[in-house]
Amino acid sequence: MRVFVLPGEAQDGGAAELRGRDFHYLVRVLRLAVGERFQARDAGGALRACRIASIGADFVRLQLEPPEAEEPGGPAVALIQALPKGRKMDQIVRQVTEAGVAEIVPVFSRFSLSRLDEPGDRERRVERWRRIAREATQQSGGSRVPLISEPLPLEGALDAPAQEGELRLVFHQERLAAGSLHAALAGVPRRVTLLVGPEGGLAEEEVARARERGFQPITIGRRVWRTETAALFAAAVVQCLLEEREAWKPA
Amino acid sequence: MRVFVLPGEAQDGGAAELRGRDFHYLVRVLRLAVGERFQARDAGGALRACRIASIGADFVRLQLEPPEAEEPGGPAVALIQALPKGRKMDQIVRQVTEAGVAEIVPVFSRFSLSRLDEPGDRERRVERWRRIAREATQQSGGSRVPLISEPLPLEGALDAPAQEGELRLVFHQERLAAGSLHAALAGVPRRVTLLVGPEGGLAEEEVARARERGFQPITIGRRVWRTETAALFAAAVVQCLLEEREAWKPA
Repeated sequence: MRVFVLPGEAQDGGAAELRGRDFHYLVRVLRLAVGERFQARDAGGALRACRIASIGADFVRLQLEPPEAEEPGGPAVALIQALPKGRKMDQIVRQVTEAGVAEIVPVFSRFSLSRLDEPGDRERRVERWRRIAREATQQSGGSRVPLISEPLPLEGALDAPAQEGELRLVFHQERLAAGSLHAALAGVPRRVTLLVGPEGGLAEEEVARARERGFQPITIGRRVWRTETAALFAAAVVQCLLEEREAWKPA
Repeated sequence: MRVFVLPGEAQDGGAAELRGRDFHYLVRVLRLAVGERFQARDAGGALRACRIASIGADFVRLQLEPPEAEEPGGPAVALIQALPKGRKMDQIVRQVTEAGVAEIVPVFSRFSLSRLDEPGDRERRVERWRRIAREATQQSGGSRVPLISEPLPLEGALDAPAQEGELRLVFHQERLAAGSLHAALAGVPRRVTLLVGPEGGLAEEEVARARERGFQPITIGRRVWRTETAALFAAAVVQCLLEEREAWKPA
């Protein structure tokens, strides 16, 4: 079930050299020998056949075959997530990766309690999230490691120009509009961008700005979600409706 | 947003006496005084107006008004969850409570790594889950604390006779049938029971037995979920489809 994911820095064209935990996993855990083959995803998400070319004391060299053709996926789902407190973002990255999100944009919003102000803090966190995303992709047999951008102010993420066929949704705990998620997704978007607030929610002016920038407010249930549950909930329901797009029509 | 939930053991007809953290919350945090009123859910989930009748050094007595009428909810969702390793069940209980699940049935399945064999283990865990469920209901402003039963063998849960209008679904990582979740939920069930396996999945004979007992296999995506993500994913998508039942029809 598990599909190995090649770390980007290890790959050099048709070859890759792995050390550390990847070396350990392939050589010590899977016990692959020279000449044996296995499937892996490259850093771009393509499925590649790999052959063990050589094994050293602490490294393994792979020879990669050209990418295999795959059925095209559905629309990409991106998550703009206002940074929650402490380590909650780790869980969000792990769970939404499992849910198939293609891109995660961490943002600082007005009520974000995390500022990552210490020197080196941002770099360490981003590196950590990328590692979690890579592991989660691997464990879930996913086809693509989500892109995780450097944290930026919410305004920066909102002001990015919409892509063609992009549907923008802001998940909000108060019912701001009558629309359902089914109605919003009925138009078969090519890309869906979800905005989820931090623990304290988005400020009124942030919701207003998001709406100006084309984000439709969506409410599911009459509940107040913790932000880490809201992110997965949003990703899960959007993914399910997209994947089952042939099975339903708007009423 | 927060709705206070009365612990079952505190309530005695039209009165309740609270101590410990509930006392602290009402008297020290909310600073309610004698004669003041607030809304709470009673242990049965009904919304009750409460009046502070008296305050002692370490207790507060409440006077409860009769339950208020509420709009009826949708179909109840129950989760039969095969016990995962360690403390993962805590996260599952917390997140599916937020997602509005009405009942959680922890079960031991063939690949469950948790046996809760130590003396007192089960009692402590069940008590812990019930406390987590109560807190999560409170924080999310939910209307009803989910019932959590004592852990039992999977067979016991599967063999329970189906209730009238009950839809039974088993979430499985391999696509066992062509059916979509939309098709399964189109029949407007009165109750939905979800079965989610442990880390190692359900054994083949367990899936076979579940199918014999009327559980329809459902697959979302082509991914392998960790069990704690699978449970919330399943609860989230079912809840969303039920809540938006007026917004879609089967294709």
